[in-house]
Formats: sequence, structure tokens, C-alpha cells
Amino acid sequence: MSELPIAPIGKILKNAGAERVSSDAKIELAKVIEEEGEHIAKNAIVFAKHAGRKTVKASDVKMAYDEL
Amino acid sequence: MSELPIAPIGKILKNAGAERVSSDAKIELAKVIEEEGEHIAKNAIVFAKHAGRKTVKASDVKMAYDEL
Repeated sequence: MSELPIAPIGKILKNAGAERVSSDAKIELAKVIEEEGEHIAKNAIVFAKHAGRKTVKASDVKMAYDEL
Repeated sequence: MSELPIAPIGKILKNAGAERVSSDAKIELAKVIEEEGEHIAKNAIVFAKHAGRKTVKASDVKMAYDEL
């Protein structure tokens, strides 16, 4: 939790078309996308191990995201 | 795209238990969680408008995430 900085998260909301964004909304979005990220990361690690690798590659992350 | 810094994304992968992570894996994870973030942000904006608000609140983000 709380690895992601809040400012870029606010930008994602602005880019998506938000007129105004409360600061708790930014914190909440940071929290939920970090949860998603952790979930994808864990699956990517499983896929890397399954392929006999210690190094997680982009293809593992892609597969984990597609499997969501 | 590309609002999120790469270093914290690498930390998410390390926290999830990755021994080694290629740099393209970090970039890929940043890309996919940003896509997720954009998707959640767009739905949160719809929920805020539906509630007659211009300001996106944490409860809109929560609802958008639960609806995923």
C-alpha cells in the first residue's frame, strides 16, 4: 500500500474529464489501483516462475492483466 | 498514459515477492494499472454527475471500483 504518489493520480482523474476532484477521491483511486497492481504483480510472478524464470518480464505482466 | 512514475511500480512488484524484475515489466505494469485507473476514473465521473455533483468524491471511486 501507498507506494503511488497522489499528484499523478489526480492527473488521471483530470485527464478522464473530472471538473473537480476531492483529495479523498485521489487517495481512494491511488489505493484501488495499487491493489489492482499488487494483484497483477502477484500473478505475473506466478507466470514467471511457471516459465522457469526468476525475472519477471513484461510478457508475464501482460498475461496477468489479460487474466484479470 | 504515462502519468505514473516507474520507481514505485517497481516497488509494487518487489513487495509482491518478485526476485528480479525487468525494466520493461515495470513499464508494462505502469501502463496497465494506468489503463485501469483511467477506466475507474471515467466511471467515477459518471457516478458523480449522476449524483448531481461536479466534484468527484471517494465514494464515486469506490463505486466505480466495485463495479469493475
